[in-house]
Formats: sequence, C-alpha cells, structure tokens
Amino acid sequence: MTASAATSFDAAAVAAQFPILQRDVDGKRIVYLDSGATAQKPAAVIETIEQSFRLHNANIHRGVYTLAQEATDRFEGARATIARFVGARSPETIFTKNVTEAINLVAYSWGRANVGAGDTIVLTPMEHHANIVPWQQLAKERGARLAYVELTADGRLDLDSLDRLLALEPKLVAVAHISNVLGTVNPVEEIVRRAHAAGAVVLVDGAQAVPQRPVDVAAIGADFYGFTGHKVYGPTGVGVLHGRRELLEAMEPFLTGGDMISQVDFDGSTWKELPWKFEAGTSPYVEATGLGAAVEWLDGLGREAVHAHEAEITRYAMERLAEVPGLTIYGPAAEHRGALVSFALEGAHPHDVADILGRDQICVRAGHHCAQPLMRRLGVPATTRASFGAHTTRADVDALIDGLHGVRRIFGL
Amino acid sequence: MTASAATSFDAAAVAAQFPILQRDVDGKRIVYLDSGATAQKPAAVIETIEQSFRLHNANIHRGVYTLAQEATDRFEGARATIARFVGARSPETIFTKNVTEAINLVAYSWGRANVGAGDTIVLTPMEHHANIVPWQQLAKERGARLAYVELTADGRLDLDSLDRLLALEPKLVAVAHISNVLGTVNPVEEIVRRAHAAGAVVLVDGAQAVPQRPVDVAAIGADFYGFTGHKVYGPTGVGVLHGRRELLEAMEPFLTGGDMISQVDFDGSTWKELPWKFEAGTSPYVEATGLGAAVEWLDGLGREAVHAHEAEITRYAMERLAEVPGLTIYGPAAEHRGALVSFALEGAHPHDVADILGRDQICVRAGHHCAQPLMRRLGVPATTRASFGAHTTRADVDALIDGLHGVRRIFGL
Repeated sequence: MTASAATSFDAAAVAAQFPILQRDVDGKRIVYLDSGATAQKPAAVIETIEQSFRLHNANIHRGVYTLAQEATDRFEGARATIARFVGARSPETIFTKNVTEAINLVAYSWGRANVGAGDTIVLTPMEHHANIVPWQQLAKERGARLAYVELTADGRLDLDSLDRLLALEPKLVAVAHISNVLGTVNPVEEIVRRAHAAGAVVLVDGAQAVPQRPVDVAAIGADFYGFTGHKVYGPTGVGVLHGRRELLEAMEPFLTGGDMISQVDFDGSTWKELPWKFEAGTSPYVEATGLGAAVEWLDGLGREAVHAHEAEITRYAMERLAEVPGLTIYGPAAEHRGALVSFALEGAHPHDVADILGRDQICVRAGHHCAQPLMRRLGVPATTRASFGAHTTRADVDALIDGLHGVRRIFGL
Repeated sequence: MTASAATSFDAAAVAAQFPILQRDVDGKRIVYLDSGATAQKPAAVIETIEQSFRLHNANIHRGVYTLAQEATDRFEGARATIARFVGARSPETIFTKNVTEAINLVAYSWGRANVGAGDTIVLTPMEHHANIVPWQQLAKERGARLAYVELTADGRLDLDSLDRLLALEPKLVAVAHISNVLGTVNPVEEIVRRAHAAGAVVLVDGAQAVPQRPVDVAAIGADFYGFTGHKVYGPTGVGVLHGRRELLEAMEPFLTGGDMISQVDFDGSTWKELPWKFEAGTSPYVEATGLGAAVEWLDGLGREAVHAHEAEITRYAMERLAEVPGLTIYGPAAEHRGALVSFALEGAHPHDVADILGRDQICVRAGHHCAQPLMRRLGVPATTRASFGAHTTRADVDALIDGLHGVRRIFGL
C-alpha cells in the first residue's frame, strides 16, 4: 500500500477507517483533497454520534434520570477531553457552533466593551473572512480602525511590519495560526509575545492548525484561541473558543437565554460561572461528544505522527506540482507551511481546473477561499487548493498530478 | 398494544421506531416523558445523519465536485422542506444553532436598530428565559423598558391586559406559542392581529408548538417565528428563524464571516441575499439535513393525527393525575393546553419526585424549566413536568401514575 515514505505512518490504513473514502462515484474512487474546507469523518466519530442519539440522548444539565445524566457526563467529558487535547482548562473551553461564532463572541462581548473610537485592531491580509468581517463591523460601530501586517514576497508575515503596527498600541491583534490559502504557519508564540509586550490582546484563529499539528494553547499564550469541530474530523455544528479566565470573567455574555443564567427576575438576570455563561440554550451536546471522539481518534493515531505524515505529503505534493508546466504555487516553502497548497495553472481558470478534476472525483476547491482581501493582494480572482488529511496518500497526490496533466491536455496547453 | 383509545393512531408502533425506547436500564424499560426538554430521535432521522457523514459529506456552497454538490443539495433541500412544513418561504427560513440564537439574532440585529430609550417591549410571564433575557439585555443597553402581560388564574394570557400594554405603543411583543411550563396554547394569531394594529412587531417562540401541532407561520402572521430542531425529533445543533422578508432585508447581519458575504475588502464588506446573509461560517448542514428528515417523518405520521393523539394523551394524563391525592396541576384545562403537564405533589419536593420516578426510568423533569419569573408568579421554587410525544402511550402515563403513588408511599403520604 501507500505508506508515507519518510515515516512508518500508514495513511492507507487510516483511509480505510473513513466510510466515505470507500465510496466510489461512477466507478471512480474518491480522492479527497479538501480537508481544509471540512474533514471527512472516521467511523469512530460517526458511531459515537449515532450512539449518542440511539442510546444516551436527553437534554443536558437539567435532568435527574439516567439518560440525562449520561448525556451530561458525555458532554462535559468531551469538554474535558477537548480542553486537554489543546492544553487548555475546561472552564476556559466554551462550545460554540463554529469558529465564526467563537470570533463573533469575542468581537461582541470583549470588543464592544474594550474597543473605542480611534483604537487600532491589527489583522493580517491572510485572514479568513471569519477573522476580518467581525472586526470590520466592530470598527465601523466604534469608530476604530483596522491595520494589516504586511506580507513578505513568499506569503509570510513581515514581523517588522507587525512591530510598526504594535507601536500604535492596538487593542487587539487577530491572526490565523495557519493560513487557509497560503498554508503559511504563522509564528503565533512570537506574535503573542510581541503583542502582549505592546499591551494588545491576541486572538488566534486555529481552524486550520488544530487538525494538522499538536497545539498547546497555554504555550502559545493567546488570550483567545478558536477552532471548529468539522475540520478536526468531528461533526458540523460545534466549535470551540478558549479564553483566558480573567478576560472571560470580565466579559458580558454574548447569547443569552436558558442554561447560562444563575437567576432570572422580571427585570434583570445574573449569570452562571464559566464556561456555561457563554453557552445559551441547548448546546450542541451530541456534536460536542462527536468532537470528543474525533480528538481521541486523532490522539490514537499520534498527533506528531499525523503532523509528520502531512508535512511529508505536503513536501511530496509541492515536488510533484513543480513538475506540472505552467503551474504557480502561492505561499511559502514546504518548511513554513501546513498541509495545503494553493496554485494556479496558466491558461486555465481555477474553477475550470477544479471542475475537470472533480469529474474524476479528485476533490479540490477553487475560489477565493473566504479570503478575498488576500486574493486582491495576490492579484488573482481565485486559486485552486489541494489540502491534506491524516488519510492522504502519495497515491492521492499522484492522482492530482495526473489530473492536472489531463486538464492541460483538455485546454491544449 | 396501547393504541390511543380515541384515535386510530398507534403510538406503540411509533415508539417502536425510536431506538432509545427499545433500551432498558437495569431491566427497566424507559418511559420517556421529557419531550418538552428534547425529543427522542426516530431511526429515520439517525440514519439520515449517519448517511450524511458516511456518504455525502463536504462543505456546502463552495465546492464543484460531486460530494460538495450532494451536500449542498441536501442542505438547501432540507431548508425547502422545513419551510414548507411550517408554511414559510425558503429565503425567509434561516438556520441558527437553536431557538435561543434565533431570538438573540432578532434582539441584536433588529432590536439594536429599532428599540431606543423609553421604548416598551411586551413579554409574558410564561416566557422561557430564551425569550426574556435577550430582551432584558437589549432594554438595559438601550434604556427601554419591559412590560409583562398579566395571567389569568388558570395560567392563560389576559388579553385585556395585553390591550392595555399595546396602548403604550410597544416596539415589540414577544410571546411563546405554547408555554413550556403551563402548557398554555396562546392565541398567537389574535395577539399578532392586535399587536400589528398597535404598530408592534411580534416574535413568537414556537419551540414547544412546532413538534406538537400543525403550524402555519403565514397564517399566524408573526414578523419572526423561531423553533429548535432537537425538540422536533431532529438533531441538536440546529434551529430555525423565520422572518418577514422586508424586516430581514432591512436588518444588519448578526454573525459575520464566511459564506454570508458578497464582497470583502480590507475596509468593509457587503452581504449575500437572504437567507445566507444571516448564516455565517460553516452552517450545521448535516444537522439541517437531519431536521429535514425529522419533519418529513412527522409529516408521514400525519401532523393532525399526532396532534390529536397528543391531545388525547394529555387529557388522559390530566384525568389520571387528578386521581393522585395531594397533586396540584398548574395551568389551564386540557382544551387550552399542549402536550405537557406541570404539577406539584404536596409533601414532596419536585426534584425528589423526579428523582424517585427516575429510579424506575420514568423520565420527567423537575426545576424552574428555564422560567424563573413564572415560578415566582406561581409562588413555587420548581415544578415536576411530564411532557409527551408522538410515541407516548397510555401505558407510559399509567407508569407515571403508578410511580407517583410509589413516591407517596416512600414519603409516607
């Protein structure tokens, strides 16, 4: 089979754990190279979700009977597992519906109380819309201004430019851990160190990073660190916000309603302690349990091993892509990037490339990848992106390369 | 088996479709009387969710390959199904994570733009915290005031009192379709008619109503109507907000980020059309598909038949509960209530009642039911509540009554 050459990691055996990768469409096997958009789900995760509904379902926190206790234990157990997985503490681990809600929560609850007229918010041009638009809305409402760190020619952050922006004493620095377009792995520990020295609060968008590599939010030291379940082999409908306790405790709640209150009277209310203060209404408790199973599954593979495998696959993909005439790769060299590659094929629109590859069930994504400002900076309307997971084999990359040669033939290139 | 006496509806056959109801705990069958907190899931719903993850998973809206098209079609198809189920239009049908988010969305996006100092918001004392606290927060922020409709002695809304409050020309009336504690079915069409005549916008919280009875949001005529998936036999992690197009179009988005934008530049952004303007980030697309399967399943049973069955079960439960010495039922007569009964047993704390019933796997809920203001109005700290579903049989009610006699024996009553 196609074990990764540089490691003992058997990606083909991992792929066998994914029901969807056993499916074929019109006799063609699925070559899934879109983990950056959403991860596929191993059987263990699907079974946990199914078991939650089939055997252990009841609304959490409020019931005394067996099913309700089981559901509550599974939900809070998942929280503890997920917190441990990223080196965080349970009370500082808040379940949201996705990373977008996590960032909006901070923009509304922390931002409205701490950002005022004339204040600066520092972003980077490689942010996903989820880490741009909430700050634009906050800035518009409060008369604050946005400033963007400059990029180097190879798509990394220019830390001298960051230092110049930090001299403006920004209230917040919001940065992706790994760019979903360029693949750039940002030096978030160093960014946090510099930003804290300048008195700024730091939010890190870990949506791409948590699936790919060991993440220790305590070591990173960001004030807020968010990620989303469906990209970490878990279900849709659940995301996570980690926050520093002092900040979370000082913040007003964001969504309000049941399960987050201590006391409600006709005229006003008081709040539960962390983390529940930020979890209004019925939480996605089954989804949280599924995410708990997903991170346990990743831990079972070995996170360093998964990271090493994906780094090897990424290196291999970049080598093979370089063989394709007229192909431009965006972003830094393999040693500075996570498990994804965006590229352009001269003479073919990125959407056409993805469309033609899709006919052979080679699943890549084309578009602005929710990063239109970056597209403008790159001077392109879109890119085609291949992104990798624990199950990605060299054979998958080979299929991509063969497919790209096919695209060139179709376009007469 | 235990077909409901007054109808041909075979609740036992329905119950057989629920995997969790086939489970026993310590040799005891599960008597699930907590559908008001969350519904159990029929096999058809669990299988749809499982199939979504096993066969059709990819991130929606942005992919050109087969899996992405299938996932998008299933998601948007579910939206159309769910809209039709409640007589609404797809573009006015917004997926949220739960009804709490739906109400918060209105409180933030409509409320912040339309409620100012001195304005009145009319609520009722029977609201769930989800339909109180967001308005308290809005009122606190904007210097508005809350006013509560009075209740009749049997726990119905006093419409004369509503008229007196409407004379204050409130900006908003927010009301539950069915109370989750009293069971009261509120005359929402009449309330909307009067409120609109007074120039108020109306939000109806349909969390308890949509699972129980045919709901036609167009006929009700409310400006906003919300409900939650997990109470309608669907999964956790998904809720629905219906809104009138003119209002939704005039509102700023609530959560911002990917998939809800038209154009993002470094300094500002524009929004997609409805409904996507209000759906930021990766939607709970698998959960939405599960909810679509749930409402199709309900439609398959026949919604009038389910309603008639639950009304019959509720009447039967009230008759049998009246046999239990020292038992007080809160709320109106059976003809004015939905499928739930809250009660107190003299000499036993509501939590103890639930706890003792729970030992026999009779699943009822005790507490304030996220309605502390109502508890204060009733003059009790808590109630015990039994709530019913399409699968509830007379045998389930009989088990509850036997259990309550057992509680009386344990307490020496």
